[in-house]
Amino acid sequence: MLKASVIGATGYAGVELCRILLTHPQANIHRLSSVSFTGKAISEVYPALRGLCDERLVSEDEAIDGADVVFASLPAGLSEPIARKCLQAGALFIDLGADFRLHDPDTYESWYQKKYEDPELHGQAVYALPELFREEIEGARLIGNPGCYPTSVALGLAPALKGGLIGSEDLIIDAKSGATGAGRGLSQTTHFCECNEGFAPYKVACHRHTPEIEQTLSILAGEPAAVTFVPHLLPVSRGIVSTIYAKLKGGASLPEVRQRYLDFYESAPFVRVLPEGEVSNLRNVRCSNYCDISLHLDAHTGRLIVVSAIDNMVKGAAGQAVQNMNIALGLDETAGLLFVPPAI
Amino acid sequence: MLKASVIGATGYAGVELCRILLTHPQANIHRLSSVSFTGKAISEVYPALRGLCDERLVSEDEAIDGADVVFASLPAGLSEPIARKCLQAGALFIDLGADFRLHDPDTYESWYQKKYEDPELHGQAVYALPELFREEIEGARLIGNPGCYPTSVALGLAPALKGGLIGSEDLIIDAKSGATGAGRGLSQTTHFCECNEGFAPYKVACHRHTPEIEQTLSILAGEPAAVTFVPHLLPVSRGIVSTIYAKLKGGASLPEVRQRYLDFYESAPFVRVLPEGEVSNLRNVRCSNYCDISLHLDAHTGRLIVVSAIDNMVKGAAGQAVQNMNIALGLDETAGLLFVPPAI
Amino acid sequence: MLKASVIGATGYAGVELCRILLTHPQANIHRLSSVSFTGKAISEVYPALRGLCDERLVSEDEAIDGADVVFASLPAGLSEPIARKCLQAGALFIDLGADFRLHDPDTYESWYQKKYEDPELHGQAVYALPELFREEIEGARLIGNPGCYPTSVALGLAPALKGGLIGSEDLIIDAKSGATGAGRGLSQTTHFCECNEGFAPYKVACHRHTPEIEQTLSILAGEPAAVTFVPHLLPVSRGIVSTIYAKLKGGASLPEVRQRYLDFYESAPFVRVLPEGEVSNLRNVRCSNYCDISLHLDAHTGRLIVVSAIDNMVKGAAGQAVQNMNIALGLDETAGLLFVPPAI
Amino acid sequence: MLKASVIGATGYAGVELCRILLTHPQANIHRLSSVSFTGKAISEVYPALRGLCDERLVSEDEAIDGADVVFASLPAGLSEPIARKCLQAGALFIDLGADFRLHDPDTYESWYQKKYEDPELHGQAVYALPELFREEIEGARLIGNPGCYPTSVALGLAPALKGGLIGSEDLIIDAKSGATGAGRGLSQTTHFCECNEGFAPYKVACHRHTPEIEQTLSILAGEPAAVTFVPHLLPVSRGIVSTIYAKLKGGASLPEVRQRYLDFYESAPFVRVLPEGEVSNLRNVRCSNYCDISLHLDAHTGRLIVVSAIDNMVKGAAGQAVQNMNIALGLDETAGLLFVPPAI
Repeated sequence: MLKASVIGATGYAGVELCRILLTHPQANIHRLSSVSFTGKAISEVYPALRGLCDERLVSEDEAIDGADVVFASLPAGLSEPIARKCLQAGALFIDLGADFRLHDPDTYESWYQKKYEDPELHGQAVYALPELFREEIEGARLIGNPGCYPTSVALGLAPALKGGLIGSEDLIIDAKSGATGAGRGLSQTTHFCECNEGFAPYKVACHRHTPEIEQTLSILAGEPAAVTFVPHLLPVSRGIVSTIYAKLKGGASLPEVRQRYLDFYESAPFVRVLPEGEVSNLRNVRCSNYCDISLHLDAHTGRLIVVSAIDNMVKGAAGQAVQNMNIALGLDETAGLLFVPPAI
Repeated sequence: MLKASVIGATGYAGVELCRILLTHPQANIHRLSSVSFTGKAISEVYPALRGLCDERLVSEDEAIDGADVVFASLPAGLSEPIARKCLQAGALFIDLGADFRLHDPDTYESWYQKKYEDPELHGQAVYALPELFREEIEGARLIGNPGCYPTSVALGLAPALKGGLIGSEDLIIDAKSGATGAGRGLSQTTHFCECNEGFAPYKVACHRHTPEIEQTLSILAGEPAAVTFVPHLLPVSRGIVSTIYAKLKGGASLPEVRQRYLDFYESAPFVRVLPEGEVSNLRNVRCSNYCDISLHLDAHTGRLIVVSAIDNMVKGAAGQAVQNMNIALGLDETAGLLFVPPAI
Repeated sequence: MLKASVIGATGYAGVELCRILLTHPQANIHRLSSVSFTGKAISEVYPALRGLCDERLVSEDEAIDGADVVFASLPAGLSEPIARKCLQAGALFIDLGADFRLHDPDTYESWYQKKYEDPELHGQAVYALPELFREEIEGARLIGNPGCYPTSVALGLAPALKGGLIGSEDLIIDAKSGATGAGRGLSQTTHFCECNEGFAPYKVACHRHTPEIEQTLSILAGEPAAVTFVPHLLPVSRGIVSTIYAKLKGGASLPEVRQRYLDFYESAPFVRVLPEGEVSNLRNVRCSNYCDISLHLDAHTGRLIVVSAIDNMVKGAAGQAVQNMNIALGLDETAGLLFVPPAI
Repeated sequence: MLKASVIGATGYAGVELCRILLTHPQANIHRLSSVSFTGKAISEVYPALRGLCDERLVSEDEAIDGADVVFASLPAGLSEPIARKCLQAGALFIDLGADFRLHDPDTYESWYQKKYEDPELHGQAVYALPELFREEIEGARLIGNPGCYPTSVALGLAPALKGGLIGSEDLIIDAKSGATGAGRGLSQTTHFCECNEGFAPYKVACHRHTPEIEQTLSILAGEPAAVTFVPHLLPVSRGIVSTIYAKLKGGASLPEVRQRYLDFYESAPFVRVLPEGEVSNLRNVRCSNYCDISLHLDAHTGRLIVVSAIDNMVKGAAGQAVQNMNIALGLDETAGLLFVPPAI
């Protein structure tokens, strides 16, 4: 069994990693680290885990020591030293944060007000969206796990962009995320009484996931892509729905577009292209690693509308990280990830 | 005191009309009608009203008889005969349904699969969005009260469209509504267990409010407008947020755009143009007749993003109907409508 | 018009007071104070109030200066000096906190770990549950506004206890409150992601409202009452439902019990005793000053079950405070309080 | 692999059975039946299952044919003929409905207004609460799976009742259930807009689970037990919390009581007795087969308070049914049931 450690295990993505690793057939939880709760059992912080995972929280270094795989889910700017230690120790490092996602150091600096200290390290990192970059992930040792919004958007647009069905300019992404996306930290925005029965956009056209989205879309399109990206906070715990608007080029019909998507995702076990007439609903992907994609045509205005739904905590974070671990280490891509989403 | 009747009083918009009329300083509830609950007290159907409104539900004809104002909130196709009876009886008729909103009979027929039986009658009807068409409403006797989505969109775009700041083509409206928008009728979609913790679009690019939206935007722009309109169902009870994307023409700055909005709505008591940097949140307009509008610029792509929030049951239905009654009959526009939205 | 100030205006009870005072026919908001937000407008803290109340937040002393009535909603232990200043300034003081509720200084000390510094001051205070102690409230100058749970329980039991229908020992109160009861302060418990889709008791049999409940029930029963009180946190914003279990003494039938309640509350405008067969639901009292009471008999075990529902923010705090102001100053008891609860 | 069929597969308990069986290591879904959706794929009814379970829905007889195990989740009164067919066909039959739970035919008749047509059949049925009646379940062929409320109550009280720590009279059960408990059928009560932000009891002291609760408690106590049982509807999808009040006999301390619970459930893999000071929260058992029990003492009144939390769809229905299948057929009790509840 692989020994997997989680750094930042008491954050929401961290504890979701624990949930997934607990039933992974080829990996065990090695150690869990936390700065705020060192010494406590993780099940004291998350009583849902009582009896299933009563591991004591240790320091970062203890977590790395002896691990085959190290996952880190930390605020921006903290992952470089951990990555170095893991590489030295021969462990696969998978970063769920933002530090190894952007290829261009200047873009990182301008959006995160931090610098890449060790550019050479970043040269080894793979941006690991498995459905698009599987080959680069195989055998990788340093993995930047994509952001939640960028995952939903890239999967929603890849077949159309790559196939030239739509242009790469004039893309509008209206995204909606559940409150786990804002993390475990306390804020007025996620106070129950201020989130419940509310709905609003935030960071309108200035969210940090914008450059990450554009990076991937540009690769797919083979030319610079520019998006208008507006995230909103949904009063639900989990899930992202991205509604994406693009101008259709050429006269592809909806069945033709859909066929391209089916072909593109033929060997992608976690993408479900829905039948015509259905819509992606975040209910249907909760607690699962699926990305549901529904396709719609506004004949009236010649627009393709793509609705992409994922669980931000799974396909948008912890599940995708485990999928990346599986691919990097040559395991079955779906190992430990075939949870059935609750129908209700 | 004016005598006001409500036909279809046990639907969600109907009972919201009751709530508003109960504290209106110049109108009393005359009679309430319901097909399904005739003979029962409305407070048996909605126990929140116990002791405040225990009126027995009567037939449509009894409701019209003796009324100064008649509101009807009914499914499409049922309002023409009521309108005629009201006009004959000398009562102001305000239709909250869709039967008097569309000017073009063919458009109505193609979206509603019903015909205007009495075209002459429709010639007398006023499409009553007070902030845009106040003068036509003054003295009107037959009023088509706008739909909820069209209200949020028209108010969100009017100053920009009318001022030529944006084009009328290439408008994208990503709208989200609480579940009261689907009405009191039972359906799997609004079963608690299937709506709760879910989120999805519906009627993608084919919702019946599309032609109503385009009708108003075309008038404002002075040329045919075409929109891509995608509504979504939010797991909250009340409220609509429309996030609207438009290409800016010319080089207006955000403060300039905002000033246009402030000027345009200078004498509109129910529109609040938010300070720069704030976002419209449906929490802040719940149970009130306000429309909150926030303005945002995506400098990157040259897009204006307008976020418009209303309570679908108030400014999107019953509140606007009372506002129209006030204007039509020469009362103070805000009479009975100055509820303070709960801050929490 | 009376000049009313609110100290602690940015807490949830404070801002609810603002909402109510804004439409009170005989009182105006004089000044609002806040320690954390001095200098800001209250509508910056609560954007729902924009345009309706843009009052700047001032210091406590400024709020008292020139006021006819001062409301304070503060953590325990801070109200004594304010009360003294108000009495000196000739203002009516209404404390929404816990400092003037308990008659016995030792009980206060043992539950709050604080002392009554000025016992003479407490001698002037009235525990102001209007339906039970109206006469003492008339003309009072120093008012302890009851807690939310104690209000729901005392109103639920008063007719039965006072009429000797039930005993005062062996009372079980299973209470459930919405999250506003926990206040605006941040905590993991009221983080959206940890409250949403959750439900649990808290402070089991050790909540600070226990002695306040027992104090009132003892007065009503004419002998010491002892209760088992277990509060729970509901994943809703507003409202309390208390389900109360008592042994019936003698053989009163349910209609007889109900008649006692009807008689007892005959002249209480804010208590609604429901028809037999209906149940109190917090939906029906939201945003209103009503207390709904339903009565049930378990013939099987001889128990009376009383279900009492209030809005914790209104009848459980700000609404009752205004009701007390009305009574103390000789206004109509219902002035400013006749909001219609939204049926939906 | 065992071949397991589900009759009534499109109800909420039925589809939850599908979710569980899909990952069971020793059972496969054989056939699924539904009266309303025959011919459709279950994933058309529940799109969450798309790609995971696209089984077509068949008739009841087809479902039984060739099955090793048949689960039925149907309204009361429909299970007898199915049970007979299964016994004849040599299949284990597990009824999730109410038809094989009550031992006394008169009790069944008086609460369900139906008769046991085939008393001999009922003689073979086992009331299958595994933690209490494991031995009877081993080798059983006809199983009555307990109701959701009765499961939470019996597990919450068993160690105390059996150990004589509390009396069997004077038990009060204040229970709260999520909306899945009301099933998939449409009703105004579970309309999103009427359940959301609401809370109320229902069937006060007259719920059909009362005799089932009393039957088990009487067996445990060795004398007739009488309970006051009041269920409430929570605005969440899943989960039950039962808060149970009992008079302590003798002077057991809380640690002593807790030790009895720990001993009693020593070999029960799905019961977690929480540490002193913690409370059972339905969040922590969602989507899992756990029952969390917290124990509290009201020293003041000498009452033991037990808080028992389960997922009504899992330990309260489908999970327990699979646990019973495992035990009846000699599999590992936990096979297919070790889901980790989502911590968030």
